[in-house]
Amino acid sequence: MLTAIQKQTVRTRFAGLQTDLHQRLLQLDKDAQQKTHTWDKDGGSGGGTSLVLRGEVIEKAGVNFSCVAGDAYPRLESEHHGKPYYATGVSSICHPANPHAPIGHMNVRMLEVGDKVWFGGGADLTPYRIYEQDRDEFHQALRQACDSYSPTAYAEYTKWCDEYFFIKHRNTVRGVGGIFFDYLQNDFDTLLAFVCAVAEAYGRVYPQILARRLPLPYDSDDRDGLFYWRGRYVEFNLIYDRGTSFGLKTGGNVEAILVSLPPQVKW
Amino acid sequence: MLTAIQKQTVRTRFAGLQTDLHQRLLQLDKDAQQKTHTWDKDGGSGGGTSLVLRGEVIEKAGVNFSCVAGDAYPRLESEHHGKPYYATGVSSICHPANPHAPIGHMNVRMLEVGDKVWFGGGADLTPYRIYEQDRDEFHQALRQACDSYSPTAYAEYTKWCDEYFFIKHRNTVRGVGGIFFDYLQNDFDTLLAFVCAVAEAYGRVYPQILARRLPLPYDSDDRDGLFYWRGRYVEFNLIYDRGTSFGLKTGGNVEAILVSLPPQVKW
Repeated sequence: MLTAIQKQTVRTRFAGLQTDLHQRLLQLDKDAQQKTHTWDKDGGSGGGTSLVLRGEVIEKAGVNFSCVAGDAYPRLESEHHGKPYYATGVSSICHPANPHAPIGHMNVRMLEVGDKVWFGGGADLTPYRIYEQDRDEFHQALRQACDSYSPTAYAEYTKWCDEYFFIKHRNTVRGVGGIFFDYLQNDFDTLLAFVCAVAEAYGRVYPQILARRLPLPYDSDDRDGLFYWRGRYVEFNLIYDRGTSFGLKTGGNVEAILVSLPPQVKW
Repeated sequence: MLTAIQKQTVRTRFAGLQTDLHQRLLQLDKDAQQKTHTWDKDGGSGGGTSLVLRGEVIEKAGVNFSCVAGDAYPRLESEHHGKPYYATGVSSICHPANPHAPIGHMNVRMLEVGDKVWFGGGADLTPYRIYEQDRDEFHQALRQACDSYSPTAYAEYTKWCDEYFFIKHRNTVRGVGGIFFDYLQNDFDTLLAFVCAVAEAYGRVYPQILARRLPLPYDSDDRDGLFYWRGRYVEFNLIYDRGTSFGLKTGGNVEAILVSLPPQVKW
């Protein structure tokens, strides 16, 4: 069982990660329109905050924090279905306007269900135009965060990422990978340090990649290519992503969940 | 069991409905770019044809015909799972450019699985700007087709439609309704006549509604509203629609299935 102090510690760390990442993205597009959505959970306790940016450079980005509790864990396929739960997490997605700049996604979360506590999360990069330098730099940053936790973590979690973000109906991976992990049960402090290291690594490396790609010139054909390619992202999120479909089907906050969808798409 | 002649009859009628509807939509946008995709089923017999229009007036429309057979009916939740099957159908979706003109959708299909044969289908209208005249005319046409089959059909199938096309996570219906029906088992000739009457009613009334709305003026704000509103359509199709997610997850033809997605969307 988590203590009240542990819960507060996680919330505070996650809220800090939210603010930090939001500021880092805002630095890349200081004129972006900023909106804050706060929401309360229906029929339970807790809620969340979405910080949304929409601008000329950062076409759409969201950094979400949520912390909710309930009497009955709703995941039907889980052995823990129906038990009391507590869940908190921070997630972010960023859709730059420039077709040379990759979509970035990061999420870390902690769940307590019944007498079990576990952490999950990950970070991945989805470029329309693929640059090896960006991929290598992104993976190197995540590898460092993983190595600080376990010598096998990076190998395991990159594999898990490629499996999870596979778009079955198009027989292709979603992007150039990253890491994905779930159900990690270990010492609380060790795991909290690990997931924060992942989020912080993302907070450093992703804006660094954007800073390099955002000045590159592009034309309306490049943008059009980006719009069609973003359709794959929507297909993955709405058809396969656990968090999205689970959240939508169980009455989560629609605006916060769908902040992940790209601003403009073509099919 | 269907006879070979019955199968040929259905195929011929459905292929005729496809051609007729395609021509009727083309009449509304004679300069639209026309494409034909044909595909063969992997690991089975049969295939299909998609007739796709993309133009200034009809921004995107598809009319699909398919006829496939296999050794094992793939729907896991069906009592008929694993039995030999034969399935044929025609479906259409149309996304006009003008925000005053509604999205139209129609599908009729026949399945034989093991020793059972059933028909299903429907037609529904999804306007961004709602006009009562359009809704009434659309429903009146479908009512006539239903009345020719059974005096209770229209009442039952409009209710089924409202239930099926309910977008749970947004707590709203998708459009202004229409009819939806499935698993109809009855005399073959009676059912074939009914589903063809539905498709033909749609083929008359939907272009008639478009012809009235397509000349109305609109500006870029109207288009922008349309783009955001089309997002609901994508959410429904990718999260809830049986045919779409079933087809994608079981290796159907991706291009044919996703021809239903709107040409331009914003979130």
